[in-house]
Amino acid sequence: MNINKNYLNLKESYLFSLVGKKVKDYKAQNPDKQIISLGIGDVTRPLVPAVVEALKKASLEMGEKETFRGYGEEQGYTFLRKAVCGYYGKKGVSLSEDEVFISDGAKSDLGNILDIFGTDNTVLIPDPVYPVYVDTNIMAGRKIVFVQGNEGNNFLPMPDYDIKTDIIYLCSPNNPTGAVYGKEELKEWVRYALDMDAVILFDSAYESFIRDENLPTSIYQIEGSKQCAIEFCSLSKTAGFTGTRCGYTVLPRELVRDGVSLNKLWLRRQTTKFNGVPYIVQRGAEAVFSDEGLSQIRENIDYYMENAGIITDTLRSLGIWFVGGENSPYIWLKCPKNMSSWDFFDYLLTNVQIVGTPGAGFGSNGEGFFRLTAFGDRENVISAMARLKNLMINDI
Amino acid sequence: MNINKNYLNLKESYLFSLVGKKVKDYKAQNPDKQIISLGIGDVTRPLVPAVVEALKKASLEMGEKETFRGYGEEQGYTFLRKAVCGYYGKKGVSLSEDEVFISDGAKSDLGNILDIFGTDNTVLIPDPVYPVYVDTNIMAGRKIVFVQGNEGNNFLPMPDYDIKTDIIYLCSPNNPTGAVYGKEELKEWVRYALDMDAVILFDSAYESFIRDENLPTSIYQIEGSKQCAIEFCSLSKTAGFTGTRCGYTVLPRELVRDGVSLNKLWLRRQTTKFNGVPYIVQRGAEAVFSDEGLSQIRENIDYYMENAGIITDTLRSLGIWFVGGENSPYIWLKCPKNMSSWDFFDYLLTNVQIVGTPGAGFGSNGEGFFRLTAFGDRENVISAMARLKNLMINDI
Repeated sequence: MNINKNYLNLKESYLFSLVGKKVKDYKAQNPDKQIISLGIGDVTRPLVPAVVEALKKASLEMGEKETFRGYGEEQGYTFLRKAVCGYYGKKGVSLSEDEVFISDGAKSDLGNILDIFGTDNTVLIPDPVYPVYVDTNIMAGRKIVFVQGNEGNNFLPMPDYDIKTDIIYLCSPNNPTGAVYGKEELKEWVRYALDMDAVILFDSAYESFIRDENLPTSIYQIEGSKQCAIEFCSLSKTAGFTGTRCGYTVLPRELVRDGVSLNKLWLRRQTTKFNGVPYIVQRGAEAVFSDEGLSQIRENIDYYMENAGIITDTLRSLGIWFVGGENSPYIWLKCPKNMSSWDFFDYLLTNVQIVGTPGAGFGSNGEGFFRLTAFGDRENVISAMARLKNLMINDI
Repeated sequence: MNINKNYLNLKESYLFSLVGKKVKDYKAQNPDKQIISLGIGDVTRPLVPAVVEALKKASLEMGEKETFRGYGEEQGYTFLRKAVCGYYGKKGVSLSEDEVFISDGAKSDLGNILDIFGTDNTVLIPDPVYPVYVDTNIMAGRKIVFVQGNEGNNFLPMPDYDIKTDIIYLCSPNNPTGAVYGKEELKEWVRYALDMDAVILFDSAYESFIRDENLPTSIYQIEGSKQCAIEFCSLSKTAGFTGTRCGYTVLPRELVRDGVSLNKLWLRRQTTKFNGVPYIVQRGAEAVFSDEGLSQIRENIDYYMENAGIITDTLRSLGIWFVGGENSPYIWLKCPKNMSSWDFFDYLLTNVQIVGTPGAGFGSNGEGFFRLTAFGDRENVISAMARLKNLMINDI
């Protein structure tokens, strides 16, 4: 019996465990200091009333013989797939229900989708990056090539026709950088993918944070994309579902490779290895897309984006280079005084008790950069920025 | 770009769609006839009050800032892993919390576990079988060998040392046959697995239906099994969770292959490609393992097992050969008069309007056999058995 030897090529990620250890050690030595975390990628605002009401109602339904639900379709209940189609309709994207697959979150589907692709494919991944894109491909033994995000291209790398690839990861608004591709840029990526006969895996988990109406919130707003792109989205950040678990993946019917419909392959994968999202959760997700739900989640997103505004205003006033924070809950800043990511982490923790995430944890191009998130409490964000301002003004 | 070509080797399963089509056609031609289905593998009794209360309470918690939960550990909340350890403790099996992984169901984990094994492994699968074991391995291109379940061995095939294998699937109580391995038989399988350096994937999804105290309800009741077995279990049938989605997988620390802990490999797989089960659902699952929950689900299981008793009493009185139905919700009968599976299906549908599942749909050894399930309403089970009795007595 052999294990999957590719797993031995995975690097252990010490990013969040090292952050945790450093914070714990500092706390132990400085019990009276109040630490503020702007590092977490998790939401803090509770589920909105429309969702809670739907969850409660569905829970009660499950306790009555007449309304109890057993197995549902693996790809999700029609009521929810319809709601997702309606949401896309408002973006000007027309989808049919059988192009939408309900999932327990974008992370699961972004990993599992690789099942339907050959292991001999080459994968193109931007650096810095959400580590899951890299690790899931190492697990399958695929060749990975990186495209470089950096200060020069505002962390929005563009296609290079000298690089041959089969699978392309794009995340916009980006985690960790918060950078967002415009329509012209995505058009170029679609053109490149079609030219390469490649498939784009488009992670749009942060689409609901886009404020600028000129920026695309779905790859399918770009012509030709239905022939080359799969889109992954999640209610985790949109509606605070990080602990409630629901997302959706779109595989257009037009997406065909090797003469085979990828939609059909994915349906086969899901019906064989998945049994669907809990009925209760699907009712909660449906409520997100109701008028009431959309208006309530908008308030939460506004709250987070006001936090982001407080952070970006501060950075701007201090002359610190950054991207993100305007159409994204992530702010990616250049560490002042040429500090390394981890030096800046220690500098903030020990001087002003602010915790963020060192960019080096997201790939080699993240070195010298630092991620802040807008998911905290208002009061904490205001205090943290006052502390930062004070530190930088007195220290420079 | 290449698709995963192994998918092209999958056979389309027409089993349940053909059953559905035949029933639909019959109904259209005989609108006045009342059809009774004893074919479904889905539960019909609602969630028990203790679970509904927990789901409702957790839903409300998610709506309050103080009790809201975001991301949880991918392998499940400690409160639920502790509850699972407690449940195993009552079986005389000692597990630590980090050996238990909470999942969205046995089907997902039985497919996903294959990620951690090499594709060059040979897989041993009993025939007849739950089709997912076969299809998930075809998707990965593994070589499959079958062991034969038949009337001669009461559909409990035993190891054959001439067959070399790396991965062994066992399901007891079995789906589709309802046959249950005894301790001596499982000891032989464990000895064989250790001899082969193989890993047993033990599907115990129906363990809660075992009444006979001498029958094992977990592979870990067998000495040596922690060195060679992974156990998959689900609350789907135990607690009516088919639409609520929660199960658990056990990987003992002692399970090491190629010098690597399979527990650690699986943790890496799950933290990379999964984000855990909804908090709300985990609270519902926790309630299953409370004294109140266990007593309430016991009533439902008793109800189904009384159905099974009505079915087996009828078959016995008619002299029809069968296995299962005594420690399992499935009854696997030999089609009378040497009818084929599908002939018997048509015979029952057209003469007495009973729907079951043709055994041929579960593998070549299922030909000539037929599956009935105990998950229906009492009244329907009684009517169906009266109709069957009447038909067989008058027809023979």
